[in-house]
Amino acid sequence: MEGARGRRTGGARRRAAAAATGGFAWRQLRNPYPPVEILTAEQVEAIHEASLELLEGLGLRILFDEARELLRAAGAEVEEDSRRVRFDRGLVMESLAKAPSTVKLHAPNPARHVEVGGDKLAFITVGGPPNASDLERGRRAGSLADFSDFIRLAQHFDVIHVINQPVEAVDVEPRVRHLETSLAMLTLSDKVPFVFARGRQPVADVFEMVRIARGIDAERLRREPSVYTVINTNSPLQIDVPMARGIIDMARAGQLMILTPFTLAGAMAPITLAGALMQQNAEALAGLTLAQIAGPGAPVAYGGFTSNVDMKSGAPAFGTPEYTKAALAGGQLARRYGLPYRSSNVTASNAPDAQAAYESEMALWGALLGGTHLLMHGAGWLEGGLTASFEKFVLDVEMLQMMAAFFEGIEVSPETLALDAVREVGPGGHFFGAAHTMARYETAFYAPLVSDWRNFETWQETGGLDATRRANGIYKQVLADFEPPPLDPAVREELEDFVARRKAEGGAELDGA
Amino acid sequence: MEGARGRRTGGARRRAAAAATGGFAWRQLRNPYPPVEILTAEQVEAIHEASLELLEGLGLRILFDEARELLRAAGAEVEEDSRRVRFDRGLVMESLAKAPSTVKLHAPNPARHVEVGGDKLAFITVGGPPNASDLERGRRAGSLADFSDFIRLAQHFDVIHVINQPVEAVDVEPRVRHLETSLAMLTLSDKVPFVFARGRQPVADVFEMVRIARGIDAERLRREPSVYTVINTNSPLQIDVPMARGIIDMARAGQLMILTPFTLAGAMAPITLAGALMQQNAEALAGLTLAQIAGPGAPVAYGGFTSNVDMKSGAPAFGTPEYTKAALAGGQLARRYGLPYRSSNVTASNAPDAQAAYESEMALWGALLGGTHLLMHGAGWLEGGLTASFEKFVLDVEMLQMMAAFFEGIEVSPETLALDAVREVGPGGHFFGAAHTMARYETAFYAPLVSDWRNFETWQETGGLDATRRANGIYKQVLADFEPPPLDPAVREELEDFVARRKAEGGAELDGA
Repeated sequence: MEGARGRRTGGARRRAAAAATGGFAWRQLRNPYPPVEILTAEQVEAIHEASLELLEGLGLRILFDEARELLRAAGAEVEEDSRRVRFDRGLVMESLAKAPSTVKLHAPNPARHVEVGGDKLAFITVGGPPNASDLERGRRAGSLADFSDFIRLAQHFDVIHVINQPVEAVDVEPRVRHLETSLAMLTLSDKVPFVFARGRQPVADVFEMVRIARGIDAERLRREPSVYTVINTNSPLQIDVPMARGIIDMARAGQLMILTPFTLAGAMAPITLAGALMQQNAEALAGLTLAQIAGPGAPVAYGGFTSNVDMKSGAPAFGTPEYTKAALAGGQLARRYGLPYRSSNVTASNAPDAQAAYESEMALWGALLGGTHLLMHGAGWLEGGLTASFEKFVLDVEMLQMMAAFFEGIEVSPETLALDAVREVGPGGHFFGAAHTMARYETAFYAPLVSDWRNFETWQETGGLDATRRANGIYKQVLADFEPPPLDPAVREELEDFVARRKAEGGAELDGA
Repeated sequence: MEGARGRRTGGARRRAAAAATGGFAWRQLRNPYPPVEILTAEQVEAIHEASLELLEGLGLRILFDEARELLRAAGAEVEEDSRRVRFDRGLVMESLAKAPSTVKLHAPNPARHVEVGGDKLAFITVGGPPNASDLERGRRAGSLADFSDFIRLAQHFDVIHVINQPVEAVDVEPRVRHLETSLAMLTLSDKVPFVFARGRQPVADVFEMVRIARGIDAERLRREPSVYTVINTNSPLQIDVPMARGIIDMARAGQLMILTPFTLAGAMAPITLAGALMQQNAEALAGLTLAQIAGPGAPVAYGGFTSNVDMKSGAPAFGTPEYTKAALAGGQLARRYGLPYRSSNVTASNAPDAQAAYESEMALWGALLGGTHLLMHGAGWLEGGLTASFEKFVLDVEMLQMMAAFFEGIEVSPETLALDAVREVGPGGHFFGAAHTMARYETAFYAPLVSDWRNFETWQETGGLDATRRANGIYKQVLADFEPPPLDPAVREELEDFVARRKAEGGAELDGA
């Protein structure tokens, strides 16, 4: 983004950027609504039982030797030729019982710590797309500049609680990419950061950078989850080397690991939702069991990502009715094991348009009614995760802020029931000038970020821009006005020195894809 | 719409139009999810009690003499100078107890009857906007041609259960407009029709046309609700002449009346949601009481339409977090009185864009989680109800069809848990060719109407149209291929004769706005 790093001193621009947050002030979110249960208790048990039967009978193929060794030592049945591991249900349930049901994530800025579990939840940026897009420059391979701009947006909008790697910095050599992206993440933002499980050394490098950013020692880092990763199984029923190593490394380090099977019904999982959920559950239980064996009591979360493919083309679909249903069911399964639940804000749309909005809303409602604690891909995800979109990021922030306002509930009291105000106004009157209105009008309602509520004529006279065009203007303004959060110069220097030294050493070996 | 009435004989076009329904086949919808309760039972009672206190102390201004006379005779306290009516709580509760909790709506085609109440619900078109719009022709005053085209869309899409007057036919003289629009409604569609309460004679005319269309006698029409209206109070606390007359006429005729206060928090109602809901409830109870006094046991529904204004501009906002919360609370109040509940699919967006989609989704989820039985403005509403949009109609149909699919739940059985299929495929395999997949792939998942799930390159090569542009193509195709439902030539002739005669008589006198 041109001018993104150029600081403007004009107070007006800064005020405009502040207004562009939509008035949402940082806070720990709480979802007061009891989850919607799409499955009966008996159906949850049927899925649970079938998953255990699958783990005991067929098991998983686990490609990492060290993982099979750990599992064998803990009592699992390992068949070395096929690298197959069968999990006894006692081992699974005893292991899962060690996992905490809530996790406090520690950010470099203590004011940005967040708790997940119970009724507390956090919203997270998009993570992982290889491409970036915006209306002017179109879709292209992601760069470190795009990565940094997304981090700036994530830092600016208070409704984003936790950072992910919003786009691949494809222009940075893979061996040093984790160093450059983590440096951007930890200097442009003070929120909880993310690490990709792409090998032992890169993960260790990021742990060290997070330790430096937090200004704590290694022992305290181990006690306080301060960085997190997502482990996707290679569905069906397989865990590859980097993923299995990531499970072990995160657990031993006491950092949060979200185990998320990628169970696309009709492709990598059965075409029936019950079957896809059963397989999701089996794979999740296997990975979570490995984590608790590697690091008993390690913070973990149960990830649900079951969706369906388009049976005509084989293309993955997201934000479908099936996705929404699976998101609700996934929450019930996570609660069955007393684990924090992760879901996502997803769409298959190729453009940040009406489809992107309604598919995202279907996903969001499924996630939040499902009792999600960690909402991943909360802002910016497009095109089934192949693109991080700047306009979609802003549209998503609006949707998330609306959800946060929805969580606030309705206050019922003699003052809010307002009988006196109604009596004062009387039949046929109006409330604009009533004292009851005047005392509350500045904060009574959600103030939108993107939505334009002006009448048609005014909207048309001022350009008639649709929501996507308005989102384009908002993201550019936020970047133009961005100022990074305060950072102790000594910490910055230590981070920069570490990155320089590790780059000089040649960066890190990555595990095979 | 050019070519809209021209029938094409090509089977390919007809098959394409059939495919454009998204595969949703007509059925009575059931919402299996228990409503989300945003208010505690105590809070519901606090709103109920404050409403009764308001009805007893301040009362409503009711401008229609006959209505005040009926209410006085039933025991209400009437002050003629101020036309104020105060309702004793005993009168209110005894009257409401007479209303049925479920209503069966009878369509001209018996296959299109729908039940509302309990877990059964119906989706309805947009109703009432003065303007129509589409991408090519822009926004203009509605015409009979636009009206007829929207009826064609409503007839085509099976997820639309009930018709409303989708746009004003401004090009038709007001004295005969109800005749022309009802003729279009009853010849282009066989679904349950709507009548505006715009005076005694126009309502009587429409009743007669509905009777003819159903081929029944007047006595049976009185027993079988076959047409419905919406009564909006003139908030705060006022009911004008046409609205009060409509309440009485519908009740005496045994036709469905949906009482919907238009309580915009901060303008026509208190700025606090609890206060706006309290006032909504008081106004609804007053109108529903009048209905049950005029026609004991008459079919009625409790309408919730509480939203908020933009406090900066005074413009009404829809699909806001406040709207969603009020939709949930409205459902709780309707259930408090054992009445069917009406909510809406609304947005303040000026364009059929991402804002329109996310605001509509917020409204839809509020409605459906609130236990709505009649979803009004289900398809086509734009710009706070000032415009009926052809593209929005198609986008909404997609959203409604997704909701209908979401209502289908998850089947859990040994066959759907699919342990055998997973064993057959095994670790690292894929499910595309599995027998379990092949047996189910044609009907396993929701097939979208507008959503494009193809990969970016294919989408871009075929024009890169966003969802709104695709919706434009779909509505034009449906209109081009439209064939009206079968209609007995004798019935058609009787309808046409009636309209010709009533037009020759000069149409009907309308009540003042």
